[in-house]
Amino acid sequence: MRIHLINPNTSRAMTDKIAVTAREVAGPDVAVVATCPEPGAGPAAVESHTDEAWAALVVAQQVACAEAGDGGPADGYVIACFGDPGLDAARELTAGPVIGIAEAAMHVATLSGRTFAVVTTLSRTLGRAHDLVRRYGFEDACVALYAADVPVLELEDAGSAARERIAELCERAVRDDGADTVVLGCAGMTDLCADLTKRTGVPVIDGVAAAVGLVSGMVHMNVGTSKRDEYAPPPRRPGERR
Amino acid sequence: MRIHLINPNTSRAMTDKIAVTAREVAGPDVAVVATCPEPGAGPAAVESHTDEAWAALVVAQQVACAEAGDGGPADGYVIACFGDPGLDAARELTAGPVIGIAEAAMHVATLSGRTFAVVTTLSRTLGRAHDLVRRYGFEDACVALYAADVPVLELEDAGSAARERIAELCERAVRDDGADTVVLGCAGMTDLCADLTKRTGVPVIDGVAAAVGLVSGMVHMNVGTSKRDEYAPPPRRPGERR
Amino acid sequence: MRIHLINPNTSRAMTDKIAVTAREVAGPDVAVVATCPEPGAGPAAVESHTDEAWAALVVAQQVACAEAGDGGPADGYVIACFGDPGLDAARELTAGPVIGIAEAAMHVATLSGRTFAVVTTLSRTLGRAHDLVRRYGFEDACVALYAADVPVLELEDAGSAARERIAELCERAVRDDGADTVVLGCAGMTDLCADLTKRTGVPVIDGVAAAVGLVSGMVHMNVGTSKRDEYAPPPRRPGERR
Amino acid sequence: MRIHLINPNTSRAMTDKIAVTAREVAGPDVAVVATCPEPGAGPAAVESHTDEAWAALVVAQQVACAEAGDGGPADGYVIACFGDPGLDAARELTAGPVIGIAEAAMHVATLSGRTFAVVTTLSRTLGRAHDLVRRYGFEDACVALYAADVPVLELEDAGSAARERIAELCERAVRDDGADTVVLGCAGMTDLCADLTKRTGVPVIDGVAAAVGLVSGMVHMNVGTSKRDEYAPPPRRPGERR
Amino acid sequence: MRIHLINPNTSRAMTDKIAVTAREVAGPDVAVVATCPEPGAGPAAVESHTDEAWAALVVAQQVACAEAGDGGPADGYVIACFGDPGLDAARELTAGPVIGIAEAAMHVATLSGRTFAVVTTLSRTLGRAHDLVRRYGFEDACVALYAADVPVLELEDAGSAARERIAELCERAVRDDGADTVVLGCAGMTDLCADLTKRTGVPVIDGVAAAVGLVSGMVHMNVGTSKRDEYAPPPRRPGERR
Amino acid sequence: MRIHLINPNTSRAMTDKIAVTAREVAGPDVAVVATCPEPGAGPAAVESHTDEAWAALVVAQQVACAEAGDGGPADGYVIACFGDPGLDAARELTAGPVIGIAEAAMHVATLSGRTFAVVTTLSRTLGRAHDLVRRYGFEDACVALYAADVPVLELEDAGSAARERIAELCERAVRDDGADTVVLGCAGMTDLCADLTKRTGVPVIDGVAAAVGLVSGMVHMNVGTSKRDEYAPPPRRPGERR
Repeated sequence: MRIHLINPNTSRAMTDKIAVTAREVAGPDVAVVATCPEPGAGPAAVESHTDEAWAALVVAQQVACAEAGDGGPADGYVIACFGDPGLDAARELTAGPVIGIAEAAMHVATLSGRTFAVVTTLSRTLGRAHDLVRRYGFEDACVALYAADVPVLELEDAGSAARERIAELCERAVRDDGADTVVLGCAGMTDLCADLTKRTGVPVIDGVAAAVGLVSGMVHMNVGTSKRDEYAPPPRRPGERR
Repeated sequence: MRIHLINPNTSRAMTDKIAVTAREVAGPDVAVVATCPEPGAGPAAVESHTDEAWAALVVAQQVACAEAGDGGPADGYVIACFGDPGLDAARELTAGPVIGIAEAAMHVATLSGRTFAVVTTLSRTLGRAHDLVRRYGFEDACVALYAADVPVLELEDAGSAARERIAELCERAVRDDGADTVVLGCAGMTDLCADLTKRTGVPVIDGVAAAVGLVSGMVHMNVGTSKRDEYAPPPRRPGERR
Repeated sequence: MRIHLINPNTSRAMTDKIAVTAREVAGPDVAVVATCPEPGAGPAAVESHTDEAWAALVVAQQVACAEAGDGGPADGYVIACFGDPGLDAARELTAGPVIGIAEAAMHVATLSGRTFAVVTTLSRTLGRAHDLVRRYGFEDACVALYAADVPVLELEDAGSAARERIAELCERAVRDDGADTVVLGCAGMTDLCADLTKRTGVPVIDGVAAAVGLVSGMVHMNVGTSKRDEYAPPPRRPGERR
Repeated sequence: MRIHLINPNTSRAMTDKIAVTAREVAGPDVAVVATCPEPGAGPAAVESHTDEAWAALVVAQQVACAEAGDGGPADGYVIACFGDPGLDAARELTAGPVIGIAEAAMHVATLSGRTFAVVTTLSRTLGRAHDLVRRYGFEDACVALYAADVPVLELEDAGSAARERIAELCERAVRDDGADTVVLGCAGMTDLCADLTKRTGVPVIDGVAAAVGLVSGMVHMNVGTSKRDEYAPPPRRPGERR
Repeated sequence: MRIHLINPNTSRAMTDKIAVTAREVAGPDVAVVATCPEPGAGPAAVESHTDEAWAALVVAQQVACAEAGDGGPADGYVIACFGDPGLDAARELTAGPVIGIAEAAMHVATLSGRTFAVVTTLSRTLGRAHDLVRRYGFEDACVALYAADVPVLELEDAGSAARERIAELCERAVRDDGADTVVLGCAGMTDLCADLTKRTGVPVIDGVAAAVGLVSGMVHMNVGTSKRDEYAPPPRRPGERR
Repeated sequence: MRIHLINPNTSRAMTDKIAVTAREVAGPDVAVVATCPEPGAGPAAVESHTDEAWAALVVAQQVACAEAGDGGPADGYVIACFGDPGLDAARELTAGPVIGIAEAAMHVATLSGRTFAVVTTLSRTLGRAHDLVRRYGFEDACVALYAADVPVLELEDAGSAARERIAELCERAVRDDGADTVVLGCAGMTDLCADLTKRTGVPVIDGVAAAVGLVSGMVHMNVGTSKRDEYAPPPRRPGERR
């Protein structure tokens, strides 16, 4: 089984970190591929709706490219960016399962407890997180959305105050909002998960791990993307090159 | 990894069939245990709210018993009955993940397409199915609930008209209701899944397979049931024996 | 007219207190019967989902028993436990009306004002209260759910701090959350109702009184439980004894 | 106990019919008063939003008048018109309970079964019925809204085709929409209730009976309208006469 | 194009102020008419549901009168009172567009940002504001409802503390509730709008301006009120005079 | 006042048609600019989520370009594609109002009647239409979503059967679904609007006209996009070029 993770930003370091997490969670029968766009061919970070629009196109391009590639289609895809950019487009472009990391983390959270909180990077992205909560049906379960107001790329810096700020928000969600679990709102937080679980005493859920778990489960049970109508392959028009 | 499936009705044949499906989906590192109550110690089938009340207690008893048993707690539990009876109680009684098959099938359905339909056995159980759809947050995704009006145990009979009736309802859901996927509303339908997928052309989702996939995924990513408050171990009172 | 109150826990003292309230509210043409399970035949208190599962079965058994009893079916039933355990099962087992005390109190609250709060015993039961609010359609009306974090049986002790704690939460709900009324979240609080109404200046609603009022009203207007499909008598299987 | 029914249209015959129903349901300790505006002092029938606006003012005037009257305030009020006109205003003007017949019928319906349908007179009033369903929280329970397209006052004519048309819609709601109960959408249908219950085999609920049952129940349990803020007596301005 | 603004209270001063705002926003091709009832023929202010009932009838009467008047129907109507009294009735009585100022302000708010808050006069009217938010579909967008607890007519007094209190609540909504915009909850606040926009740094939206903008836009695009069924002209009954 | 319409597909003919409609609705004080991407620089039509992803980026690019252009920022922007692609991104990139044509048409529909239907081109885009209905808060108002199953570009062909098919669906929505108005689900239908209004007897609403009306109204009332947090200008990163 081959699972393809797509990080739509251009950070190779973050992509590598994501791949490490994915490989830890994946069973021994699962090969993990993790890609990101070349510098200049995608946003450096996804921190706005404008970045998100670009990221969605990057995701569609990378899935289309993988499907047409030498190795043949992957068995499943993970969109490793918390806004789940390009999710609908990706589902049109493959018959395999496609899962975004926000979607994955929220699903797993509702299987672990009644309520969850999201702790993410920038407050300007909370609107997008809220939209995703509604889309996936989890408005009743999501009791808080917090932003640490730290830039995405600062998470890479182990010595930064960003990590402590995130830990405090996780604790606050559990204590003040009654969150049964905490969802980490950025692929770049994947390596914080174990420590935060210990510190808060509740499951802290990383979307990368969750998505790999869900996608590989779906491959095992032979359930891909329904190709009926909405997610059927998109019409190709003569001479058009996306 | 050991996953424990609990069928709360007393049908040994159905329990065995469930175990077969579970083992097919589970990875090679997963041991599957499937139990049901002794005849007389649980409902013969779960076809009413009254049966459901009994089934819920059976599930709680079997989880408590497994947790205290010689082999030690299972790594995760599956409630193999479409009403997900006793789900909340079971979550109190273990630190591992617990997933009902209705819950599992609906979650997977929403990862495979935008909309799903449920095809179940008796119309009198549609109210319960509707309650579960709302509980899990999938009112927007669930476009139809159908009952074949066949008794649960008749599904065991390969020659019965029950199976054809179910197939017709699956086709109708896809054609008339625009369902992207179909969720099978009974653990006893687990062996129909592959054929119905072929016949309808869309993913037909069996809760047993889905639950095994999700529970084993959660064990891999080290996420169990949140033990904060609501799902903490229930108070024991002196001299009380449930 | 005969109304049968079922307390699914084994406290005879609480059952007697409930009967007193019921008789005060019931008209002179109404006979009140109040029963509870024998010690050991039901939970000592309902303080967890596990207790609730047992309580639901107790309720079903007591209704079935009453219906088959010498005196003939009661004209209506009240489930005197705030989680409304076994409500759906009980509705299958009788043609008369069946009302849970949470259901009754919430309905009456919405007839008295726009908003209500619930003040209950243990925080671990707030999830169940939340589920009932959603089930009955009152998410928009319910502005707060508070737990006094006092064990159910301590309410019996007039000298305990439990009662003051409850009064403070009622006041807070009115003052800070704008609750027009307060719903008491435990059958054992039935005798606090009049005092709390005086103290808060708003209607404080006890589910026992509310349920007796609603059930006797329904008997007067000749409306019982609809026996169409879902709540028709449950299938009996040969040799099965619940 | 004295309960005051207000029919906001000027039909004395309908008012008398309403009083008959109310007296049948009320206990022997309950005196029923039923009033309507003089001809010209209110709408002849309530068949549009414009009629409804007038009816609301009539209700407010009649409650204010009753509260200030020689006999003193009634113990509770019923607004005997299916649009529940003036409900909020009436609640400001008395400390007793006030219930509209749509509100009452819908509440009782949800205590009798999972689902209900409304069968009313004119299709142009279905929007208002829909608004009330949402206001009271019963969107999930209400499975159909039908209009017989018969004028309100034609119901008074026993020989009219109106009654058969209404009966057919009740049957259709049960058969095709799975309604557990049917709510009659006009005070003028109060005398059809018993026959329709027999014919459909499910509880058919008349709002007049339901409201009398609920209001007298609330008086018995000593719960009136919460006078906190929104429903406190409205400000009177010098020299103003409504 | 002629737009008719109806202030249902009897304050001539407030009506004049509203007309000033309306004329500032309206294009040069738009004539603005603003009317209010004679003293004694409507409420002095709309500060309760009882006032609202009267106001609704006033609105219906003024629209009916304008439609039948010498100048012929206006091209569109604005109900210049934040409770949008009589909106449905008015839509029955004209073929032109009719918009309430609460409705208009909330629509424009959701076009300007994701979230809005309402700042209104009296806390007892917040229930009505909440109902309107739900009716128009903006529950997800409305993040706070505040009342300054100042009487409507005090807003006319430039030296009063009322204006400062309102400004503080606008600032609080932006700072603490994350409101992207603020909706002013009273026609009498129309002249505060520009200052508050400057002070808060976000769009502060006055319903009078918003309604004039929307109504004139609808006249330009030739869209009036749909006269299908619900909003068709109401039935007139012989001899009836509203 | 200058309003900039962005058609994100490359059809110059459609763009010209849109500009004609816009100019008809706009007041004499409004200059209309309509642009579309060069052939190859955007999708030829927007008929899938994959097209939509590309369209969103096109919209963001065109707004950014216009804002930085010689003529200075437009006073307001219209996204002339029924999926409202890039709406959030565009709002980040300008201080003026930005409105999508689906958004505009739905808002105007709810000001004209209680209910509306959408008639669009391809069934595979109904999911997106459904998402927009939810996003804008109009789930209660939207009673039907129909697809004519005609390709977007075929609408340009006056002799095609596409137009008749669309007319029939509009009639069906009014007759069978009780739609008070019909929203046209494609910018390319803008020239059908007047005829369909005549044929159906209810307002048929074209999003292009609606959006121009709303945007110019907002410019008149001086309300742009709230620049607080979410829609503040997006972070620019050194060396990045979108």
